[in-house]
Amino acid sequence: MAEPIDFYFDFSSPYGYFMSEKIDGIAAGFGRKVRWHPILLGVVYTVSEGKPLTELPLKGDYAVRDIARSARFHGVDYAKPDPFPIPTQAAARAYYWLHDQDCALARRFAHAVYRAYFQSGRNIGTPEVVVDIAASLGVDGPALAEALQSDPVKTRLKTACTDAIARGVFGSPFVLIDGEAFWGIDRLPQIERWLDADGF
Amino acid sequence: MAEPIDFYFDFSSPYGYFMSEKIDGIAAGFGRKVRWHPILLGVVYTVSEGKPLTELPLKGDYAVRDIARSARFHGVDYAKPDPFPIPTQAAARAYYWLHDQDCALARRFAHAVYRAYFQSGRNIGTPEVVVDIAASLGVDGPALAEALQSDPVKTRLKTACTDAIARGVFGSPFVLIDGEAFWGIDRLPQIERWLDADGF
Repeated sequence: MAEPIDFYFDFSSPYGYFMSEKIDGIAAGFGRKVRWHPILLGVVYTVSEGKPLTELPLKGDYAVRDIARSARFHGVDYAKPDPFPIPTQAAARAYYWLHDQDCALARRFAHAVYRAYFQSGRNIGTPEVVVDIAASLGVDGPALAEALQSDPVKTRLKTACTDAIARGVFGSPFVLIDGEAFWGIDRLPQIERWLDADGF
Repeated sequence: MAEPIDFYFDFSSPYGYFMSEKIDGIAAGFGRKVRWHPILLGVVYTVSEGKPLTELPLKGDYAVRDIARSARFHGVDYAKPDPFPIPTQAAARAYYWLHDQDCALARRFAHAVYRAYFQSGRNIGTPEVVVDIAASLGVDGPALAEALQSDPVKTRLKTACTDAIARGVFGSPFVLIDGEAFWGIDRLPQIERWLDADGF
């Protein structure tokens, strides 16, 4: 049985959202599972010297067009959200809290959060919206709201970010397959060839 | 008759080298010509806040593997050069000087420079090697050596960089098709769909 693939992403990353719509199906085609790891690009960037796309001269303007075009290219529904980017601590903490109880529910929650932001334009940066999305999936809202402020849940996310950096993660989406790293939705063709040929 | 495609690159950019091996053939398949524009990423980065990959924590290590893997993926011969990156003023100035005399020769020279660096490991950062490569193609070496130091040729390259920045170029390779921008060798599939469908 092959090891699961690791998929790192920030809930505010449009390219991460595109990957979230693709990676499970591609992995399944090769008999592989995927472990999802929401992280905070803000934390990763303190090490990798990254910056939000919107703050980069020239590249920021390019990204607006490239994101919309890449959505069409990959056949993923997308509407530019506003505000963008947003803080994603609440969404990521909620993911890990849910994952420790029910990993299938956590996966549905992650899809719901990404789609709420990148399809419906809901501001998933606020704990209220995060709790509301979870509640719509049957989660105990008040219990989640309390968990978002708890030290163990905060530590869980911090550890996830530290672990990601230790494994070389510097952006979103970032996919690790048997130790090989793939950064960006544009590496999907290489990911598929890698899975097909067991490396190339 | 459709407008030519514009292809911007730095002679020290491995992803630019990969594109140089692909773009003419792809464009020709859709009845399009390509205009080549060597530029200096060092100049572009002063505006776009870019940095050489090798200076970026985490991303630098990733790039070493990704470049070699991308070469295999695209079926392009590649051997990691040392030193890397290198200054490419001499190569770029030589390109424009040649182009003003014989654009087909300039294209052959550009291929020869890229292959000398990324296949044979020759240090194309020095004027001597640049002149030697040109001379092997029948160019008057001493005349080129003198041209590399002349103000009009220096100005020609500066203007090329300024024009590129004005058109939004912030990296290498960078391709403009009828005003639509594509950054990176990984945008080849989108470039092909764009050319095929006249936009998408």
